[in-house]
Amino acid sequence: MRRYAVAFLGFGNVAKALARLLESRRSELAVRYGVSCQATGVASRSLGWWADAAGLTPTSPQSATRCYDIGDWLLTARPDVVFESIALDAHTGQPALDYLAETLRLGVHAVSANKGPVVYGYQRLNALADSHAKLYRFEAAVMDGAPVFSLVRRCLPLAGIRGVSGVFTSTATVVLETVERGGSIDDGIREAQALGIAESDPTYDVDGWDAVVKLCAVSNVILERALRPADVQRTGIRDLDPTIIRAAHRDGHPYRLVGRVSVDHDAVDARVQPEQVPAGSALAVSGATLVTHYDAAVFPGGLTMTSFAPDLTTTAYGMFADFLECIGAT
Amino acid sequence: MRRYAVAFLGFGNVAKALARLLESRRSELAVRYGVSCQATGVASRSLGWWADAAGLTPTSPQSATRCYDIGDWLLTARPDVVFESIALDAHTGQPALDYLAETLRLGVHAVSANKGPVVYGYQRLNALADSHAKLYRFEAAVMDGAPVFSLVRRCLPLAGIRGVSGVFTSTATVVLETVERGGSIDDGIREAQALGIAESDPTYDVDGWDAVVKLCAVSNVILERALRPADVQRTGIRDLDPTIIRAAHRDGHPYRLVGRVSVDHDAVDARVQPEQVPAGSALAVSGATLVTHYDAAVFPGGLTMTSFAPDLTTTAYGMFADFLECIGAT
Repeated sequence: MRRYAVAFLGFGNVAKALARLLESRRSELAVRYGVSCQATGVASRSLGWWADAAGLTPTSPQSATRCYDIGDWLLTARPDVVFESIALDAHTGQPALDYLAETLRLGVHAVSANKGPVVYGYQRLNALADSHAKLYRFEAAVMDGAPVFSLVRRCLPLAGIRGVSGVFTSTATVVLETVERGGSIDDGIREAQALGIAESDPTYDVDGWDAVVKLCAVSNVILERALRPADVQRTGIRDLDPTIIRAAHRDGHPYRLVGRVSVDHDAVDARVQPEQVPAGSALAVSGATLVTHYDAAVFPGGLTMTSFAPDLTTTAYGMFADFLECIGAT
Repeated sequence: MRRYAVAFLGFGNVAKALARLLESRRSELAVRYGVSCQATGVASRSLGWWADAAGLTPTSPQSATRCYDIGDWLLTARPDVVFESIALDAHTGQPALDYLAETLRLGVHAVSANKGPVVYGYQRLNALADSHAKLYRFEAAVMDGAPVFSLVRRCLPLAGIRGVSGVFTSTATVVLETVERGGSIDDGIREAQALGIAESDPTYDVDGWDAVVKLCAVSNVILERALRPADVQRTGIRDLDPTIIRAAHRDGHPYRLVGRVSVDHDAVDARVQPEQVPAGSALAVSGATLVTHYDAAVFPGGLTMTSFAPDLTTTAYGMFADFLECIGAT
């Protein structure tokens, strides 16, 4: 049995769900992977930096050693993998980007739930990981933990993917559905907040920034084209007239906030905008459901993955699947 | 550059599409995988067994050596991988089952497009492959080449999948749609034959046998429960009253031939039957579109993969993706 030391960088709801998932899969991890997990570090803005290479309890780490920064924490916790799920600045990916770089530089696998570092540092973090023969993985960053990056990397090699589209922001769907039922955009934002799916700043979802950043991550990794948020044509749903939203819904072509990125030779076309989609089509999602569609010549009508009503456990599972890939890599 | 010798066992439309795909990906195979492919064997009922370890042209192999059986052929062609796509007896998986066993026994990767051997010999073929450190792969056997088995094996580890459902037989969909438009079941069968999607014996599709066999493959591999066709409750679409099919379609709940298999503790429940599905839902597919849905606690509403209008190239791509996994394994 191999002992695998894990450290939680950020210990909010996703990290807690991941800790529960690791616990619930303990016997399968032992039998199928020959691995026993032990938390050796936990850090968050409210807790501070805590580490004990002999093991600690993430929910009450106060008997461990208090560290003063990421470097001290990593050297004290000596983890095999860091699970990063901190709050960050969506326009820079910081401080997660620096933390992930430091993790990889010390030869530790980095599993991140954040899209920001994928957008602003994918090439650099990936090169760092390669140079230390470690993995940088981020399956939970897009589509809340359903396979997106691993699907393409592991199941669709040389498929010749030319475009990716989808509904990437469930808050926008919930807001549009609230308006369809007669409410206002602000009612919809409150509804999304009550469901716990809105970003801390919901304007970020409603104005399309969240979808833009996810589309950039998809472009960087899947289409292998560097795309920055400023390169994406962006129209949010805030300025859509509620009467038009309701009429479109009644006519069987509701609005959804759709992201599309495609490659034609060297040109990348990327946009996030409200689109009218046929009721019942793959893009006409409801609630928290997310959908990603892949265009490739070998799939004449395309290939669509839909994750219905994902929750925190789904996001945590994305990190868990990444973790299992790290185990397989070392 | 590593030379990779490939042999085609069966050289019908799927194998020909695969040969074209290998040719069209030649430069990517060289750059990304460091591999150059060379056909060294081809065999079919019409051609006979042909092999030349120095290379041959599958479409006109007559300058190669004529062999007298599978063993002679494998020893003469000395392939690294065999692509098997022969016609077979759906009730036994033969002769593909024996051919695949012989391939693996000689230490050659086996990539098969057939579901029969998965149903009747998965455990045995898999054990043979393991004992020779080779792979037995069959991604094209279900869902015409879209990721099903690789999705679960590589992207959904320890996801705790409890059930799989879907529309696995496009012929049944085409027949039902023909009836919905006013035609007969037999009109629909002719339509499916004209589209080239019907099995050689279309009653096999219409009576649900095709879906039953695919469901057994899914159960054996994904749910890790041995399931034989006789264990599946089967109702085909032949005895559905056309007026009822049309009324269901008009009412927005059309019939589709749905397969479902689920596990509850030790009990496996498996059935193939016509079901009324909500128009526009994931199961309300049209034409050749295939859909597979996975139930797991980490995906609260389930995860659905839809392959819209797949064709022969899609099936060939399933074999090609398997081939790339073989390259990675040796």
